[in-house]
Amino acid sequence: MERIPILRMGPFLLVTIQVDLHDRLVVTFQDDLTEQISRTGARGVLIDISALDMVDSFMGRMIANIAGMSRILDAETVVVGMRPAVAITLVELGLALPGVRTALDVEKGMELLRASRGLRLGKEEDGDLED
Amino acid sequence: MERIPILRMGPFLLVTIQVDLHDRLVVTFQDDLTEQISRTGARGVLIDISALDMVDSFMGRMIANIAGMSRILDAETVVVGMRPAVAITLVELGLALPGVRTALDVEKGMELLRASRGLRLGKEEDGDLED
Repeated sequence: MERIPILRMGPFLLVTIQVDLHDRLVVTFQDDLTEQISRTGARGVLIDISALDMVDSFMGRMIANIAGMSRILDAETVVVGMRPAVAITLVELGLALPGVRTALDVEKGMELLRASRGLRLGKEEDGDLED
Repeated sequence: MERIPILRMGPFLLVTIQVDLHDRLVVTFQDDLTEQISRTGARGVLIDISALDMVDSFMGRMIANIAGMSRILDAETVVVGMRPAVAITLVELGLALPGVRTALDVEKGMELLRASRGLRLGKEEDGDLED
């Protein structure tokens, strides 16, 4: 299972990270994600990290990089489900994730993206990706 | 990371399975899922298995068991993202997943659940879980 699944949820993409991101997996994931954003015209990316008990500086940088790539492709990144211990570690590592928005859970993250991208719930014409 | 995250998506729960389900992980997952269904009053469970290249009979039985438990708790299970090879294997193993509905991706699975549970898109009062 050497691939992190990327799920389409209306105009957004949802990724749940459950495994340690080693180098090769990160490269595959970045390729997959950027390719999907560009193909579908997704407006936002939700990254759920509720399964992560700990993060190291590599993981922190990867999240920041992914957010940066998405932003250039006009998709906003929201990191959701961060555990308190992870927040403490990230700040102590000096990785305060500038430019990455966070929300407590997926639903709040989606609301945030909808509000920020000017999409309204239940409007089908806003909700369809291109592909 | 010894826990499979369960995400709330409106009136449904979403689980993406990315790692091999060994015995202890399955027990933890079944506990978590049934507890969440009963606590939130979720109407449906979406299990995304797009990350699985292969399934064995253990995995097949687990999916069938999880669907059975959810059904007793009045939540319908839809398995989404199944790869063709996995479908072939499951049938060859004699595990045709009776009582489990399937859909090609998460969005189609959600539509199926909404239609089946009589919920309409964009009606906030239908979409809130109890907790």
